[in-house]
Amino acid sequence: MHMTLRVAVAGATGYAGGELLRLLLGHPAVEIGALTAGSSAGRPLAESQPHLVPLADRTVLETTTENLADHDVVFLALPHGASAAVAEALDPETLVVDCGADFRLTDPAAWEKFYGSPHAGSWPYGLPELPGQRETLAGARRVAVPGCYPTSATLALLPAIHHGLTDARDTVVVAASGPSGAGKSLKPHLLGAELMGSASAYGVGGTHRHVPEMLQNFDVCGADDPTVSFTPVLVPMSRGILATCTAPLHGGVDLDAVRAAYHADYDDEPFVHLLAPGHWPQTQSVLGANAVHLQVAVDEAAGRLVAVAALDNLTKGTAGGAVQCMNLALGLPETTGLSTAGVAP
Amino acid sequence: MHMTLRVAVAGATGYAGGELLRLLLGHPAVEIGALTAGSSAGRPLAESQPHLVPLADRTVLETTTENLADHDVVFLALPHGASAAVAEALDPETLVVDCGADFRLTDPAAWEKFYGSPHAGSWPYGLPELPGQRETLAGARRVAVPGCYPTSATLALLPAIHHGLTDARDTVVVAASGPSGAGKSLKPHLLGAELMGSASAYGVGGTHRHVPEMLQNFDVCGADDPTVSFTPVLVPMSRGILATCTAPLHGGVDLDAVRAAYHADYDDEPFVHLLAPGHWPQTQSVLGANAVHLQVAVDEAAGRLVAVAALDNLTKGTAGGAVQCMNLALGLPETTGLSTAGVAP
Amino acid sequence: MHMTLRVAVAGATGYAGGELLRLLLGHPAVEIGALTAGSSAGRPLAESQPHLVPLADRTVLETTTENLADHDVVFLALPHGASAAVAEALDPETLVVDCGADFRLTDPAAWEKFYGSPHAGSWPYGLPELPGQRETLAGARRVAVPGCYPTSATLALLPAIHHGLTDARDTVVVAASGPSGAGKSLKPHLLGAELMGSASAYGVGGTHRHVPEMLQNFDVCGADDPTVSFTPVLVPMSRGILATCTAPLHGGVDLDAVRAAYHADYDDEPFVHLLAPGHWPQTQSVLGANAVHLQVAVDEAAGRLVAVAALDNLTKGTAGGAVQCMNLALGLPETTGLSTAGVAP
Amino acid sequence: MHMTLRVAVAGATGYAGGELLRLLLGHPAVEIGALTAGSSAGRPLAESQPHLVPLADRTVLETTTENLADHDVVFLALPHGASAAVAEALDPETLVVDCGADFRLTDPAAWEKFYGSPHAGSWPYGLPELPGQRETLAGARRVAVPGCYPTSATLALLPAIHHGLTDARDTVVVAASGPSGAGKSLKPHLLGAELMGSASAYGVGGTHRHVPEMLQNFDVCGADDPTVSFTPVLVPMSRGILATCTAPLHGGVDLDAVRAAYHADYDDEPFVHLLAPGHWPQTQSVLGANAVHLQVAVDEAAGRLVAVAALDNLTKGTAGGAVQCMNLALGLPETTGLSTAGVAP
Repeated sequence: MHMTLRVAVAGATGYAGGELLRLLLGHPAVEIGALTAGSSAGRPLAESQPHLVPLADRTVLETTTENLADHDVVFLALPHGASAAVAEALDPETLVVDCGADFRLTDPAAWEKFYGSPHAGSWPYGLPELPGQRETLAGARRVAVPGCYPTSATLALLPAIHHGLTDARDTVVVAASGPSGAGKSLKPHLLGAELMGSASAYGVGGTHRHVPEMLQNFDVCGADDPTVSFTPVLVPMSRGILATCTAPLHGGVDLDAVRAAYHADYDDEPFVHLLAPGHWPQTQSVLGANAVHLQVAVDEAAGRLVAVAALDNLTKGTAGGAVQCMNLALGLPETTGLSTAGVAP
Repeated sequence: MHMTLRVAVAGATGYAGGELLRLLLGHPAVEIGALTAGSSAGRPLAESQPHLVPLADRTVLETTTENLADHDVVFLALPHGASAAVAEALDPETLVVDCGADFRLTDPAAWEKFYGSPHAGSWPYGLPELPGQRETLAGARRVAVPGCYPTSATLALLPAIHHGLTDARDTVVVAASGPSGAGKSLKPHLLGAELMGSASAYGVGGTHRHVPEMLQNFDVCGADDPTVSFTPVLVPMSRGILATCTAPLHGGVDLDAVRAAYHADYDDEPFVHLLAPGHWPQTQSVLGANAVHLQVAVDEAAGRLVAVAALDNLTKGTAGGAVQCMNLALGLPETTGLSTAGVAP
Repeated sequence: MHMTLRVAVAGATGYAGGELLRLLLGHPAVEIGALTAGSSAGRPLAESQPHLVPLADRTVLETTTENLADHDVVFLALPHGASAAVAEALDPETLVVDCGADFRLTDPAAWEKFYGSPHAGSWPYGLPELPGQRETLAGARRVAVPGCYPTSATLALLPAIHHGLTDARDTVVVAASGPSGAGKSLKPHLLGAELMGSASAYGVGGTHRHVPEMLQNFDVCGADDPTVSFTPVLVPMSRGILATCTAPLHGGVDLDAVRAAYHADYDDEPFVHLLAPGHWPQTQSVLGANAVHLQVAVDEAAGRLVAVAALDNLTKGTAGGAVQCMNLALGLPETTGLSTAGVAP
Repeated sequence: MHMTLRVAVAGATGYAGGELLRLLLGHPAVEIGALTAGSSAGRPLAESQPHLVPLADRTVLETTTENLADHDVVFLALPHGASAAVAEALDPETLVVDCGADFRLTDPAAWEKFYGSPHAGSWPYGLPELPGQRETLAGARRVAVPGCYPTSATLALLPAIHHGLTDARDTVVVAASGPSGAGKSLKPHLLGAELMGSASAYGVGGTHRHVPEMLQNFDVCGADDPTVSFTPVLVPMSRGILATCTAPLHGGVDLDAVRAAYHADYDDEPFVHLLAPGHWPQTQSVLGANAVHLQVAVDEAAGRLVAVAALDNLTKGTAGGAVQCMNLALGLPETTGLSTAGVAP
């Protein structure tokens, strides 16, 4: 079978859009169609994405229904709240993969509490590694790509919850992250001079919008009444998330049992890799790769499991996960066009 | 009063030794005496500490009792295990301030479990902000400077424990840190190419040697049977620790009560600064300063207090704390020679 | 003599203003008076300068003549073009030290060509290391602080030009720099995600505004018809400039002659340090210090002198140089309040 | 045609070896054979290359003739001086691509002066963009991959020299670089704490081993008696070179003429990209890509052409260039398995 998919990217000038295009350039079944954006419309893509030389001369179009029509796949990498209007106007048979938050949460109350706007609904959730989720995604025509922090925390803890090794009450997640997840918005705290040589916390105390998404995922994994204390920490690297995730371990569970659970759930996963004992994840190992590296420890004195996950927030955390979902939805081999080898060092 | 203290530094060629000398150069009561080291003995200090221009031509001496004798103060910045032999041979009236771990722990069993060698004893613990500790340090002639991680975690949680707001059981600490705390040892994972653009965890699962020291401090603050899940995370900056510390909050304790406790304990502390509401610590604000910046949040849904502390591991985390203790021990104003303004951005 | 100077800073919320305040906090003769700014007026300083804890509660005032009156010294750290109006309204007996470019150039044509606005005049140029310049600055009441790149290139080449060792025609300067010199302006290329892990050139081909200032300084050092090819390169560090400066060497000049010239000109300079043979400058050695580190080489095959200078663009490159000039103008010891030991590593 | 090449990598545990393997994993005609090294022999590759998950369980073999025999292609990524012995023992029909310096220089005197050892000879030089070089490389069975700095400087200046626009006498090259080019050697100045937040020069004054290679290339491009003043500058990023290259411009040559020459030479080059006017190269745009980004300016006042090149020292600067040469030597399309889109931001 030779398939050629015509693919559009809305929000092509941002960081997520740029990463989507970088991956799509290497995807053997994809022909890149319309590239759209807001304020950069009419300009060559080279101005906003100088690294995408093969597309340098492509002109950015306005994000309109007309420009996005007549594609097999439309990726949305738009500011929160902008996806619904665009998606509604597209053919129901077009695969629409939304990298934004709009359709991730199933609970309208959680949405409204954290986003402060009416709930637009929910789409099939694009984390294939969740139990049963591949079936949901096969053939789907609307997919909501997870947030980067929920992807890291969920994959770090999934086997522990799923196999009933931990209590999902009182989960604590602290995730070091580069600023590219915040996009190109011109905010003072995102200036290079502020970030380089410095680490800082933000969204502390349960206020970050990814909290309800983590809880939703823990619930899907089988947790009862989960809670999570989540703190994101900005550190001086463009990309990458290193999530340290801990949860109270049930009595009598030892490291062998933990590793067995992780092997059981992940040995067949193409993009999740449990490191050999003694090795700990580092984000450079997954830079630009559709890969999550994991390691686990049992802290007997503290009574906690510690699971550490590394991923690239723009790749497996956004654009790579989106391409993975496209592959699944359209019946392509799930790994098509996706590398697991990071650009290290 | 005009006092001139003749001060020696053993381990003058390492990172802690260099920071001690940088601070001592600006201390109005100090005359810098012998600078000693191991393998660099006989070489000019400029080779190992090119930033210390005023001392560029000083020759590094061997670390011997003779070279360290006849000083009012001797700072030890030696590899773990080397301090005891040096200290024993020094005049009991000489103030000896040890930046290493050898004399920090009071519990021989804890020492032996984490360090794997016989316990050398314990000295007055150089964290003046601990309840009652200034009295202990005044007039002391032997001081054990705390580890950088315990300083950050202890100061982050001290008022909460001290005022009985949290349960010290099930404390979780995740601390992002630069690699200078590991010293100049030539290990592959400390190479710049490995660290830049990357975050990685190490010492996970309760194995880091600073765990028993944190617990000892929590105990001094009034905690019953504390536990701590501690994970250090290396991030790409030379210096700095950002510690995210969470503990289960007792029922009914709100943010006002928390802030009141922190204000009560810290408003008179010269080196600990609770930020105004809405601001979160960043390590660049305390770079090179003897300062800790703190902020707190109450996560009601998770039932946890989150306290975030920023400090410079080499300054307040080591050398600045050491100078602070020297000031206290010798009756100088505690802030002499110590700045609280970081080198930002 | 005990002198207390009341000092105001206009532009207190920017990077140069913050560094001025950090240094002034440690200056024994200074009392910090009015802190003024534009859009941040009315807000506590802590919002813009969280590292300056001792001034956290000071309210930023508007930059008006009234607010700046009644001070002994006024530092201006304003956007280019804003200094003239403020300075004119201040008492001629007040020392005004301008960190901006407005009064640096003596040649109106050069000013107009590079800045595109009418020339406001020139003030005594605040680089005390230039031949004869200390005499000019002693007692001055208006001082124009040099640009950071011209300071680095001038001090790198001064002895070579001054002693007639090189031809100042065909000087080439390439300077790696952190982005803090560009201030807090919200421009896309200054975002952390753009800068971290990346190096980039800008202002290439003789267009940078510091070119005429370099040529003016080379001329003062004794160069005939100098030319300079200057390229600034942004690299991933908040602060620091490493300037590689090369010029054609006159026949028969060897390294001994070069080092002799540099020693002759700099051995008595408190803030310029020629490194020992075999050592090369690194910016971390001068971080936060009022210091320039230099090294020289003779490339016989290429017929060029290579001089490399490291400085902190915000300290010796701006605020430290400004305080040095204040000391000189008011008859204080030139080194008062200024450290030469950088915050390394 | 479906071709499967069995490919070995000697020096598989270093940075160049790791990058070779990352690229070979994505090459459709390659089957990865023996992975060999020195001290890591017998260990799983995951210990030295944790980012290469698909090869995690491969055991590193010793670098012996036996282990490298029976491959179609052998890449050598060995310390300088080690290649000759290995290469000699391999079948003359095996394609051997050496990433080291041993066979780059044609002039024995230049080799001996800069490397201090007897000249091993020279192989076809693996820079296909040099005039006539593709013909030399087609069918070659021994290829010497260029050094990373010479690749950047040569491609930056090639059209200017080739079209006689500049005088190659008095070329000046200053190149900012990450430390991965220095490999994993445990040297103090390569520690993360030394490199982060700092820029430093090394190999100044015509002493760097890449100087004769640059001159050799300039000569091939048509330069008469070229000279180059070359200064490498370490900056805080793992990978990347930004080379600022200037040369005296012949009278009457304007920017249009320069751009025309660069377009003429490079418009058909798959891996060299002249940016649109107004844009300047940044290394993140070529991170992990087999790509060079270029921009040029004419500085009329200084009488110099300024050409700035960005490349990834490990990709186009080493391993990517090596794969490009393999493709050429074996008659595969030159771009097979090589992406030009960098991993930005």
